[in-house]
Amino acid sequence: MPLDPLRVIEELHDLERLTGDVNGAQRVCWTPTWEQARQWLLEKVASLPVDVDRDEAGNLWVTLRGASKRTVLLGGHLDSVENGGWLDGCLNVVAALEVLRRLCEDGTPAVTVTLVDWADEEGFRFGKSLWGSSCAAGTMDPDEFRVLSDRDGTLLPSVLAAHGVDIDRALGARSRVRDVAAYLELHIEQGPVLESLDLPLGAVLGTFGVERHVVTFTGQRAHVGATPMALRRDPVAGMARFALEGRGIALRHGGVTTIGVLEAPDGIPTAIPAEVQMTFDQRHLDQLTLNEMLAEAQAASKRIAAEEHLDVRWSVQWRIAARPFDADLIDLCDESILETVGRSHRMPSGALHDAAEMAGAGIPTVMMFAQSLRGLSHNKEEDTTPEHIVASVRAFDLLASKAVAYVVRCEVMPRGSVSQSSRRPEACP
Amino acid sequence: MPLDPLRVIEELHDLERLTGDVNGAQRVCWTPTWEQARQWLLEKVASLPVDVDRDEAGNLWVTLRGASKRTVLLGGHLDSVENGGWLDGCLNVVAALEVLRRLCEDGTPAVTVTLVDWADEEGFRFGKSLWGSSCAAGTMDPDEFRVLSDRDGTLLPSVLAAHGVDIDRALGARSRVRDVAAYLELHIEQGPVLESLDLPLGAVLGTFGVERHVVTFTGQRAHVGATPMALRRDPVAGMARFALEGRGIALRHGGVTTIGVLEAPDGIPTAIPAEVQMTFDQRHLDQLTLNEMLAEAQAASKRIAAEEHLDVRWSVQWRIAARPFDADLIDLCDESILETVGRSHRMPSGALHDAAEMAGAGIPTVMMFAQSLRGLSHNKEEDTTPEHIVASVRAFDLLASKAVAYVVRCEVMPRGSVSQSSRRPEACP
Repeated sequence: MPLDPLRVIEELHDLERLTGDVNGAQRVCWTPTWEQARQWLLEKVASLPVDVDRDEAGNLWVTLRGASKRTVLLGGHLDSVENGGWLDGCLNVVAALEVLRRLCEDGTPAVTVTLVDWADEEGFRFGKSLWGSSCAAGTMDPDEFRVLSDRDGTLLPSVLAAHGVDIDRALGARSRVRDVAAYLELHIEQGPVLESLDLPLGAVLGTFGVERHVVTFTGQRAHVGATPMALRRDPVAGMARFALEGRGIALRHGGVTTIGVLEAPDGIPTAIPAEVQMTFDQRHLDQLTLNEMLAEAQAASKRIAAEEHLDVRWSVQWRIAARPFDADLIDLCDESILETVGRSHRMPSGALHDAAEMAGAGIPTVMMFAQSLRGLSHNKEEDTTPEHIVASVRAFDLLASKAVAYVVRCEVMPRGSVSQSSRRPEACP
Repeated sequence: MPLDPLRVIEELHDLERLTGDVNGAQRVCWTPTWEQARQWLLEKVASLPVDVDRDEAGNLWVTLRGASKRTVLLGGHLDSVENGGWLDGCLNVVAALEVLRRLCEDGTPAVTVTLVDWADEEGFRFGKSLWGSSCAAGTMDPDEFRVLSDRDGTLLPSVLAAHGVDIDRALGARSRVRDVAAYLELHIEQGPVLESLDLPLGAVLGTFGVERHVVTFTGQRAHVGATPMALRRDPVAGMARFALEGRGIALRHGGVTTIGVLEAPDGIPTAIPAEVQMTFDQRHLDQLTLNEMLAEAQAASKRIAAEEHLDVRWSVQWRIAARPFDADLIDLCDESILETVGRSHRMPSGALHDAAEMAGAGIPTVMMFAQSLRGLSHNKEEDTTPEHIVASVRAFDLLASKAVAYVVRCEVMPRGSVSQSSRRPEACP
């Protein structure tokens, strides 16, 4: 069968009708609806010459054996958040299904090409994302996941068991990526960048590193009328100066900083509050730059606190290292986009994806983004135009072919000599 | 009896023991403990040659008749907040009691001198302050007060009735101030200014006008990672710029501006919030300047909103006009302080007081402030050193004498010629 991108759109709509409702997609992982989506996928691949199995973590592997066991892995996730969108995660699964169909038509490929449907990328029910890919990458800590419970108080291990997964054997999934030489993931952007540039597709440079802290400025509660400006220790003033310096740091370094949660816990209209608390989230694609941004923000907060006669406290809420993608694969992704739609754009991913786990495990990785309308995601308003979905399937198929050829070339020659890039020759797959 | 300021301290402690507990003063108006404080005062004045009665609003008047019915009124309040301090309100009552004792000793004064214990200055139980003085000033609106209820749901009118007050006759208290030619009130500062200047006492210029608004910046909720800085519509950035401009406006005009309540109602760590809400309270002693401050702040918020691609909304929460005190009486207050402790300071009152109602009613008014320790008030930590209480009683007594002489002079000559001041000759009492 030749590649049929319109069939991808039809099948995405079929899946939407099967597993969604008026509020959006309901494929929350470890639920009957999610298993129904999986069943739908199994029926789709039943007629293809592929091997299908589920690993120790609950990930589903659909393998088209090639001449070599070296593998190009196409990864996505059928699971969604509650009331989710129709494209997040499953665009890759359904597009990769179409790529597999096309490859089957072409005969045995030079290397193995596998579709993986990662389990619980969203982490919606238990509040922790990237379950399946972190098992395969070997970074999943069973003791961290063991204690998680859903809103009914049900613990994760018992839910996993009901789906045939033993939390203490889940890291066995690591064996599945041993032969993976290239990891490719197509995803909607979930942001406004491509739309603002009027571009259908983008090549993703990596996922941002994140430093998220709770920052608290403490001053002196005092009566608003009786306390002249010069005698105040006002944490709102400290927070305001810090917010603007934080923005300056992001602009200077080409990253992002965000105050998402903001409150004066003891605030009343007639008093200067004693305290202002905020979450301060910094992100950058380059880990060293992110470290610099954090150091600058901390220094700025201390300087401001001293000048305003305040105290300032920082406590880490969450952090993850930056995961730059593979330079050669980024080049191939960019080429595929250019050849498909004539224009491309290289951009970081602000959101996390399974691709971050693959890159973190040392597997050459790249993602391709399709334009999101109004940057919306994780709700039923999430959308991408049919033209852009078609373009994304064509470009992703091209990237898969280029990646197969690349892995073949890598098998023959050391990686450093394959392309102009002299980066990480030791990491040649 | 000669003036005995140490007796004032003793009596304040007596009152504290009688009507307070380990959590502080419990003289909440319209409660048995408050009536107990009143009873204590009645016993204190029983041996003096004074007339005592309660007016239609529940204010208590202790009148020492003078040669003229023109009156110097010494006003304070025995009522406190729940868990209040030992000085707020009652310092004036007990000091004025001592002034009355001293005057009685000196024989019939040239003009009448009256102590008023205002009912429900704090408004603690029903959430609205200055009941008694606003009745006397004629500004009390029965329909506003009629609907107030306490935390048990009991309506104000029934509680007033239990204390002999008919809300529909309460404005009858207006007749009591017809002959008042000067209103004097001694109060603790409840702020940090005098302590910061190492001064015992200050002459008060008036009470601030207040413009209190809820200001809301609205932007676009968006994912923190997927939304580059340049594509954000971040209400936190708008709020931060506005907070700093607001401070600049206060500093330029010599007033105060405060953000007391601050929150991002939909804030989560991973999203730019859609909205930031705050209370923005501006105060100044001069009404025209306050109006300018408000106009500047509103213009600044609109400019910032335009530059940040945000919307901004203002809604009035509360406002009250500035109440400047009487220039001649301020001079006399300043003189009294200088003659008592050698140094004085003129300052506005950021908090509201019954004096604001008197000034608003066109009665020449002044207040004297005694230093507060650490600016604390409305809790049991409220305090003033014994030395400063003694100085305040001496200076207030001197001010009472000067005010009596001033009212006498005013009866003889037009007010404009009494002092250097040519302000408001038509307002001569």
